[in-house]
Amino acid sequence: MKDEMKIMAVQMPVTEGKEKNIETMLYYLGKCEKEHPDLVALPEMFDCPYRNSLFRSYAEKDGGPVFQLLSDTAKKYGIYFVAGSVPELGDDDRVYNTSYAFGPDGSFLAKHRKMHLFDISIPGKQTFQESKTLSPGNQVTVFDTEFGPIGLAVCYDIRFPELFRLMALKGARLAIVPAAFNLTTGEPHWEMLLRMRALDNQMYVLGVEPERDENGRYVAWGHTMLTNPWGVVVKELGIRQGYFTETIDLSYADRIKEELPLLRHRRTDVYEVIEKQPK
Amino acid sequence: MKDEMKIMAVQMPVTEGKEKNIETMLYYLGKCEKEHPDLVALPEMFDCPYRNSLFRSYAEKDGGPVFQLLSDTAKKYGIYFVAGSVPELGDDDRVYNTSYAFGPDGSFLAKHRKMHLFDISIPGKQTFQESKTLSPGNQVTVFDTEFGPIGLAVCYDIRFPELFRLMALKGARLAIVPAAFNLTTGEPHWEMLLRMRALDNQMYVLGVEPERDENGRYVAWGHTMLTNPWGVVVKELGIRQGYFTETIDLSYADRIKEELPLLRHRRTDVYEVIEKQPK
Repeated sequence: MKDEMKIMAVQMPVTEGKEKNIETMLYYLGKCEKEHPDLVALPEMFDCPYRNSLFRSYAEKDGGPVFQLLSDTAKKYGIYFVAGSVPELGDDDRVYNTSYAFGPDGSFLAKHRKMHLFDISIPGKQTFQESKTLSPGNQVTVFDTEFGPIGLAVCYDIRFPELFRLMALKGARLAIVPAAFNLTTGEPHWEMLLRMRALDNQMYVLGVEPERDENGRYVAWGHTMLTNPWGVVVKELGIRQGYFTETIDLSYADRIKEELPLLRHRRTDVYEVIEKQPK
Repeated sequence: MKDEMKIMAVQMPVTEGKEKNIETMLYYLGKCEKEHPDLVALPEMFDCPYRNSLFRSYAEKDGGPVFQLLSDTAKKYGIYFVAGSVPELGDDDRVYNTSYAFGPDGSFLAKHRKMHLFDISIPGKQTFQESKTLSPGNQVTVFDTEFGPIGLAVCYDIRFPELFRLMALKGARLAIVPAAFNLTTGEPHWEMLLRMRALDNQMYVLGVEPERDENGRYVAWGHTMLTNPWGVVVKELGIRQGYFTETIDLSYADRIKEELPLLRHRRTDVYEVIEKQPK
């Protein structure tokens, strides 16, 4: 199992028009020629503005044109590609907020359908009812790589400690969270959530946001961020578009687990997070 | 159920000699005459230096002299009294790190035996093996008051998100954590843990530390702190001895649960924190 991984996180702008967003994505992925990352991650809904009225019209089925392009792009650059999320049209004709992961040979590794839908209602500040148009996924997602298992969640999923605990118990030393936090919850919670899930579960956590567009109808927080198993911010972007790369040593997660063995110290004779049979 | 509660947290010094620590405790509790708090909380091991070699010799049984004094003190001032923790000698002749809670009439409400023992080994920084001398408790502790259920945990217990989730599910809008974090983990983790358990579980969390004594053999972090259901620090002490009072409105926890219904949004069809039969 490899420990040293070069991560690239892309904080791209997301605008009207799927084609334009795809172009932006391909522009940033072109940086792989210079950067040679092992893994690249994009933000939530990277090809579709974050708006209930658009999700269905932007949605494609598994294996559709965007899916195929993502696979081809992973293969072209020989990267693990966590392609943010896109609206997915399910075989059941429902729309999901889905993160696809591909391997360096372009193979489809996993998909995570956002399992907690973002329904918030803070008077005068932030209201969004994702469940109006989207359906939730029903599974914890961890996929195997040559770097060991990697966990995958989407945005609001990060609010639920049970999910990250289950990822850790499946051996994840890294979890990736395409997201689009807003200004109301970004300021007080974004960094803390990324640091805390990392600390509690002794893993790296990478949260990838789109660029902040103050003139957009949904204003994302930005601040794409990587945190480590000691709960420390390793790398962070500001609010404008761009990307960072960072080489991490995943064995640091193993060392922290030796020094402060939180997972081993859980009192599973008294309580336990259990995973139920996925639907 | 009352919502408005005046909390008093005492960051007292803990030195050699049980009598001296008891004197200090009584001095600070005397402030109740002026402050009229509803609830007072003390730090972990408030009557015994935090040292493996002392726990057994300082330990008393339930109903012993210290227990009785704590009960009398609660009654004298008409307070809920979460009396930090003390070494308890069990009927099984084992020693526990136990937090007692008393009601305003002096009645014994609950005890929480620290259920996660602090065994850490960070080379050159912090080593402590609590399990050498102490035995762990086996239960989640929430006790009823006129302010609703209150959760109780001790220090290292705060590292385990499952425990606080279970407190929240039992209706706790406030959790109290007598603690003695050290300098290695205090700086990076103390504030974040208190903020995050509060945010995830939409409750207030009060962490009470002893004074920092740089010349002591175990140097505590200090920074007694109250956090709220939005994950924000409401009140904090520095490193020297003292106390704060703060009046909180517990209905704020109810409001946050309406605006951002995290507990309701848990996917208990996919995962769940279960509590097992206590031993």
